[in-house]
Amino acid sequence: MTRPVPLSLADVERRAAAVLPPEVWDFVAGGSGAETTLAANRAALDEIYLVPRMLRDVSARSSGCELVGAPAAMPVAVAPVAYHRLAHPEGELAAARAARRAGVPFTAATLSSFPIEQITATGAETWFQLYWLKDRAQRLDLIRRAEEAGCTALMLTVDVPWMGRRLRDIRNGFALPAEVTAANLTEAAGSAAHHAGTGRSAVAAHTALAFAPDLTWDDVAELRGTTRLPIILKGILAPEDAALAAGLGVDAVVVSNHGGRQLDGAVPAVHLLGEAREAVGDTCQVLLDGGIRSGLDVLRSLARGADGVLVGRPLIWGLAADGESGAEQVLGLLAAELDDALGLAGCASPADARTLRTVTRPRPCPREHS
Amino acid sequence: MTRPVPLSLADVERRAAAVLPPEVWDFVAGGSGAETTLAANRAALDEIYLVPRMLRDVSARSSGCELVGAPAAMPVAVAPVAYHRLAHPEGELAAARAARRAGVPFTAATLSSFPIEQITATGAETWFQLYWLKDRAQRLDLIRRAEEAGCTALMLTVDVPWMGRRLRDIRNGFALPAEVTAANLTEAAGSAAHHAGTGRSAVAAHTALAFAPDLTWDDVAELRGTTRLPIILKGILAPEDAALAAGLGVDAVVVSNHGGRQLDGAVPAVHLLGEAREAVGDTCQVLLDGGIRSGLDVLRSLARGADGVLVGRPLIWGLAADGESGAEQVLGLLAAELDDALGLAGCASPADARTLRTVTRPRPCPREHS
Amino acid sequence: MTRPVPLSLADVERRAAAVLPPEVWDFVAGGSGAETTLAANRAALDEIYLVPRMLRDVSARSSGCELVGAPAAMPVAVAPVAYHRLAHPEGELAAARAARRAGVPFTAATLSSFPIEQITATGAETWFQLYWLKDRAQRLDLIRRAEEAGCTALMLTVDVPWMGRRLRDIRNGFALPAEVTAANLTEAAGSAAHHAGTGRSAVAAHTALAFAPDLTWDDVAELRGTTRLPIILKGILAPEDAALAAGLGVDAVVVSNHGGRQLDGAVPAVHLLGEAREAVGDTCQVLLDGGIRSGLDVLRSLARGADGVLVGRPLIWGLAADGESGAEQVLGLLAAELDDALGLAGCASPADARTLRTVTRPRPCPREHS
Amino acid sequence: MTRPVPLSLADVERRAAAVLPPEVWDFVAGGSGAETTLAANRAALDEIYLVPRMLRDVSARSSGCELVGAPAAMPVAVAPVAYHRLAHPEGELAAARAARRAGVPFTAATLSSFPIEQITATGAETWFQLYWLKDRAQRLDLIRRAEEAGCTALMLTVDVPWMGRRLRDIRNGFALPAEVTAANLTEAAGSAAHHAGTGRSAVAAHTALAFAPDLTWDDVAELRGTTRLPIILKGILAPEDAALAAGLGVDAVVVSNHGGRQLDGAVPAVHLLGEAREAVGDTCQVLLDGGIRSGLDVLRSLARGADGVLVGRPLIWGLAADGESGAEQVLGLLAAELDDALGLAGCASPADARTLRTVTRPRPCPREHS
Repeated sequence: MTRPVPLSLADVERRAAAVLPPEVWDFVAGGSGAETTLAANRAALDEIYLVPRMLRDVSARSSGCELVGAPAAMPVAVAPVAYHRLAHPEGELAAARAARRAGVPFTAATLSSFPIEQITATGAETWFQLYWLKDRAQRLDLIRRAEEAGCTALMLTVDVPWMGRRLRDIRNGFALPAEVTAANLTEAAGSAAHHAGTGRSAVAAHTALAFAPDLTWDDVAELRGTTRLPIILKGILAPEDAALAAGLGVDAVVVSNHGGRQLDGAVPAVHLLGEAREAVGDTCQVLLDGGIRSGLDVLRSLARGADGVLVGRPLIWGLAADGESGAEQVLGLLAAELDDALGLAGCASPADARTLRTVTRPRPCPREHS
Repeated sequence: MTRPVPLSLADVERRAAAVLPPEVWDFVAGGSGAETTLAANRAALDEIYLVPRMLRDVSARSSGCELVGAPAAMPVAVAPVAYHRLAHPEGELAAARAARRAGVPFTAATLSSFPIEQITATGAETWFQLYWLKDRAQRLDLIRRAEEAGCTALMLTVDVPWMGRRLRDIRNGFALPAEVTAANLTEAAGSAAHHAGTGRSAVAAHTALAFAPDLTWDDVAELRGTTRLPIILKGILAPEDAALAAGLGVDAVVVSNHGGRQLDGAVPAVHLLGEAREAVGDTCQVLLDGGIRSGLDVLRSLARGADGVLVGRPLIWGLAADGESGAEQVLGLLAAELDDALGLAGCASPADARTLRTVTRPRPCPREHS
Repeated sequence: MTRPVPLSLADVERRAAAVLPPEVWDFVAGGSGAETTLAANRAALDEIYLVPRMLRDVSARSSGCELVGAPAAMPVAVAPVAYHRLAHPEGELAAARAARRAGVPFTAATLSSFPIEQITATGAETWFQLYWLKDRAQRLDLIRRAEEAGCTALMLTVDVPWMGRRLRDIRNGFALPAEVTAANLTEAAGSAAHHAGTGRSAVAAHTALAFAPDLTWDDVAELRGTTRLPIILKGILAPEDAALAAGLGVDAVVVSNHGGRQLDGAVPAVHLLGEAREAVGDTCQVLLDGGIRSGLDVLRSLARGADGVLVGRPLIWGLAADGESGAEQVLGLLAAELDDALGLAGCASPADARTLRTVTRPRPCPREHS
Repeated sequence: MTRPVPLSLADVERRAAAVLPPEVWDFVAGGSGAETTLAANRAALDEIYLVPRMLRDVSARSSGCELVGAPAAMPVAVAPVAYHRLAHPEGELAAARAARRAGVPFTAATLSSFPIEQITATGAETWFQLYWLKDRAQRLDLIRRAEEAGCTALMLTVDVPWMGRRLRDIRNGFALPAEVTAANLTEAAGSAAHHAGTGRSAVAAHTALAFAPDLTWDDVAELRGTTRLPIILKGILAPEDAALAAGLGVDAVVVSNHGGRQLDGAVPAVHLLGEAREAVGDTCQVLLDGGIRSGLDVLRSLARGADGVLVGRPLIWGLAADGESGAEQVLGLLAAELDDALGLAGCASPADARTLRTVTRPRPCPREHS
């Protein structure tokens, strides 16, 4: 019996939930604290309704655009997610190949489970996500490796002075299985992530050891002077911070609350997207991250002012469900859905989508009377 | 044991859900994507509360009005719905007869399962719904046939460059049964709708083959020059588009998101009804479509600025439940409910209803405490 | 085993639901149409939060006030409800005695199941509710009887040109049992209410026969000239109508949607209470009706501008639960709750309550995460 | 088998609910009336979202602050709660020791189950909560005892002219078990709280006997002249009342609706927090009380204008779950969560948190479609 082809990312999610070990599912799906922000991310996207335009010729439309200085087949990039091998043995390599075929950038994480050089060797356009390691030498080494491996942008994560309180991982005493490692880091730097314990998350413990909690705008300025790659700051929410980033010559900001995994109670990113756009004008790109689950969500984000979006968890779902082919299905669904939504909204391009009017309506309550 | 007489359209819906084959029910009931807009259509109507006026003589009221230049017994027309024979062997003929008896226009669809000439022969006032077929000759032929058969208006659907992603139909591999055909089209043009397949909707495949995705305002202007019939544009949401339509001499616009079957995430039509009315003033009529399930909904629409409404799915429910008699019950319930609501709101006519004040309140959540 | 003393009107409601025959329960509890307005009435009250004041001496408070020109123990009157004998053999007599003991006015309905003279003979302050019967002689006779029996006000119901579509009653084929009659009317006038039938409500059929659907402001003016009793108009929602009433010298208006039993989709009365108050200033009293279920609800209404409230269904619950004693418990609970709420809000009187600030907040949704 | 360490106050709550006798659980958990305000307190906090700032050095942050003139380890004080011994034999002594270790003030209640002198002997910084007893001599005696025992502030409760209608307690006929007494009061004054009865709460009956319902601002002025201790008024909601308090030289106001236990229907305190802050400026401190269940809630309160918060029920949960150690866990969790939230929001101190922007969004409804 062949498995039915997934028709939406929710189909892929259900499959992944069924096949992943529970503690890995929790690591992927969970948020911090009471998961308030995790739920709010989805609700905030659900609340956005579009006012489509009609009778425009949409027969020759394209989802193609420019993302951080390079062409992309659609305004979507794969978000940095740690340890893809938790979902599938081929991990980041499979996901990067899927991204290459879909024509979208793949973001290799500092905490990827394959070394960056192997990821870029897939031929995918690769952005490198940088955590600001306490160890300056190792940090600079990572940047040089990313440059030499051919990465086309550096994405600095700015919202993780340490890892948020992800209760699921702590309850599970989550630690990496032996075969999954932080492949970009020296063994010493990465090994803490393997030490399981009760009442703690080994991954969080590792972060606390390795990441610098005193990262500031001065470090961003320093980074700007250190590399010629485009710089993306991921984890901005306050429009004032977006403006500061633009002022420092950053090429893009990712408006994000880290998928509800850092500050629980943080505002949904899409809520502040329009303000972030206004704050930076056209001096840098604005990408949205958090809760994107369909081409409709991409269109909503564009209409609210984004140049593009990042998609994280769904790639992991795809890997878990069916390896490289599953990852490709996820990106293929997003492409098909976005193409459909663009056309039905009367838009021939992402640029057209930026002119769509939106209406905010709360998600309807279930009916009180049946 | 006689079946209880339905007291509301919800009663008819339950009966239809019980008797229709599941894949036909899904074809009728479903929306596109996550069915966000499908649900929002209902919620948006539920949110509208009326401020009735008292102590006006409502003993001599009438629901009669003019719809697209002709008198109607109430401000309701039967919406175009494809393939009525899916619900009942007498399909459009039964529904048209019911419409005639109710004194309201019946819209014959391009994709009707009886030919237009047989439908007009029922004596119903008939509007012909036109999909902009790629094949110009066939398109012009349809228009001439509609004119010659005595249709009193042409309704051009403008929101279907192709069919939206209706996941229920794709999951079901929905295709027309052998006895149901697109009776207005040549066999070649219609046959694709019969080819069932896994992971696809044959009806959507047919649409993709036959419909023109490059329909623009220029085509509307051309159509205006092609026929002397009144022209109705169905599928307008943006008030700017309503204004463009009025500017081209269109006689009516149907503010509609195609019952949540095209762009999922599109705004509920009633949300923009007032703006559409303001945009066109009295230069053309404004009809509302999507989610009308009671006379109260008709009254809500009038109070928000509509000249009338279209009702689609409920006619199919009626056909499924009890053929022509079921369709008649549906229109009879709407008439009775509207008459009741008009009078209780202190209105002697639909024109009075246009002056009613409305209040918007979210649908109440279920109680947290019992 | 003794039954526990009810601590809230909800306790009484549960008891009544358990003991009343289902079709009587439905007649009492139901609303019209989809019962949208019935639910919204409660939600609208639940949404009102109070800002209490502190450190005011509330040791000598009183709930006493003036209602339609006479003193009352609290700003509450018993609403007109038809056929109390459906709930208890002593019907209106038991309820009126309870009202007398509670010190609040009792409204005797045109459709009461004891004659008005027997009701006033209980010693209760009695208002007479008048339906505008088609039969002018009978109408005038009712007014004279009310005057002669010692009623202290005439309450004209203005929102019932006919009975709303109460689907529960129609489904139940509801008719009065033989022992319950419209005791104020001649047998001919009342007998229609006893003819049970399938797919209809005998009570609604009776109303259609007897009530005048052409009641207008002119009739109100006529009534003003016909009686020296204070006149109350019940069923006003639009502030413009409240102003018209005040202009005709009416003594009080009851802002009401008839407990959600007439126009389904009508706005909750409390939503427009403040506007009604502004519209009439102090030229007439403003009473709220619909959904009052606690002393807190009374306080909310006062804070929103009411001089008092009507309470209907709960009295029937009390009668059903425990006859006269049950009705007394209902009024006793309201008195105790109002006294408590007044004091805790820093108010020594209903007049103080009129100065309380309110805040509107939607009823909280149940939590998405447990 | 060791019990899992609680990771959130909700974990502690579940444990307490499992181990406390039902009538004690109800006494602790319940609110007044329909518990509208009890639920709204939580919803109002859940609705507050934070806009964190990034790239600020948060490595050297501290939650330390000043509360009512004395340093505290975090902006949290233990709220006054009656009769801690209901939860654990060591009652207030265990809780006070936990507070001492956490570095936060403990509020000893007039109705504490250990005498104030034993509580201050734990070494905890202790505020004394004063109910305005009718018996002036006893009242003054309590104040002198508090001063002599070394209390550092007097907290006058101003929202209890009598106890609200807590239906759970009345249903349960709740009374103190023999081993729990109002240890600060003479036997005569306290004994009423022990007389169980059906259909009443012995604790409420005691309150009605002992507390003065005629407390006014004049008494506050008198108290100001009676003691040199800082004075805190607990139970203010109206900003005008906050201003009056500040004008009388009060040192702090606790914006509170008594945890939903007094006026049901009272506005959630956090809703008016900002206005209270504006009303008093920096002339006195503003503390929030009611529904605080996490460090995130503390941060939300600070961002809305509070100098700190009170936490009540969770301490009782801690005591019930694990005595002194459980109370310590509760305060430890709050400290860890607040430290985490401060840092992730880009704040190095509570003062920084006061500058955070907040966004209000309704708690998302559960999805209509799964």
